[in-house]
Amino acid sequence: MNTIPLGIKQSYCSQCSAKLIVATPSGDNKLRYVCSSCSTVFYENPKPVVGCVTEYADRILLCKRSIEPRLGYWTVPAGFMELGETLQQAAARETLEEACATVQLGSLLAIVDVPEAGQIHVFFRGILPDGKFAAGEESLDAALYAPEEIPWSDLAFRSVYIALKQYLAQKAAGTEWVHTDIAYKNRES
Amino acid sequence: MNTIPLGIKQSYCSQCSAKLIVATPSGDNKLRYVCSSCSTVFYENPKPVVGCVTEYADRILLCKRSIEPRLGYWTVPAGFMELGETLQQAAARETLEEACATVQLGSLLAIVDVPEAGQIHVFFRGILPDGKFAAGEESLDAALYAPEEIPWSDLAFRSVYIALKQYLAQKAAGTEWVHTDIAYKNRES
Repeated sequence: MNTIPLGIKQSYCSQCSAKLIVATPSGDNKLRYVCSSCSTVFYENPKPVVGCVTEYADRILLCKRSIEPRLGYWTVPAGFMELGETLQQAAARETLEEACATVQLGSLLAIVDVPEAGQIHVFFRGILPDGKFAAGEESLDAALYAPEEIPWSDLAFRSVYIALKQYLAQKAAGTEWVHTDIAYKNRES
Repeated sequence: MNTIPLGIKQSYCSQCSAKLIVATPSGDNKLRYVCSSCSTVFYENPKPVVGCVTEYADRILLCKRSIEPRLGYWTVPAGFMELGETLQQAAARETLEEACATVQLGSLLAIVDVPEAGQIHVFFRGILPDGKFAAGEESLDAALYAPEEIPWSDLAFRSVYIALKQYLAQKAAGTEWVHTDIAYKNRES
């Protein structure tokens, strides 16, 4: 049984600056941070991370991360979805930011729960019409990898491994579906 | 051009109680609330809402909302995903809370962006093995509706309309896929 809410520890009310207490609000069944003065309840929910597996000339676009976590490891372009955008807009923006590439997005590829990180990871298929890319600010490098060259043991996140394996498996099968999965930390499956 | 971040207005730092300022952090390109004292940056991201279209004896389980927004309108069981749970766990929990029903979840049905609400709505298919349900605390009523009886003009949310239409269309087609869509406020499409 938790004695504080999951997520980031909070001490003061963002609305009135009074101290927060931990309580289960009326009609709720979970502990939340609640303001001791103005009674505002603070909820924290899982965050959507969105990216895409983008192909050009039978190769897949990967970026080497220049920031923590997993600095120096490879990923597909992906990042936190922002308020006001759609999933596809988020995937395209992240590809532009991390790989300086204008992706033409295709269908949904995979949704991976990452419960221990409080995230859901959503991946689309994409193609790079003009073949142009470069390392963005959050990348040390960007490169196109043939399927047999993908650095599987140097991938940044389990969800990226799942998305790339699914992309290749579905391409080999000649059909597309949406894969759903759960990525746990420090486990093989 | 926005002059404050999208989302909920925040005035004080949850970590140290100092006043927040609006600024674009180094390496970022969007306005955020940033602490004037400890420099903590506060991000707000879209929230996942998860539910399911649950069937029993060729009828679909709907709940009449007892809370705002859309009090008195019908919905499939759905609600905000909590930290630490998977999408499927969230859908099952919401069905238990709102319809007192133990759902057996099936495959992913639809993902609907709701950018103006800062939400993504995720729907699964489900069946009710024992046919048991009742109105939960957040419901005025719960009922099984035959497809031709669904109260289309009294549904709570556009995304619920999309999910129910997709469910019936895919059932009529005899095949399943994952529908992706965008729900805008006050628009027909």
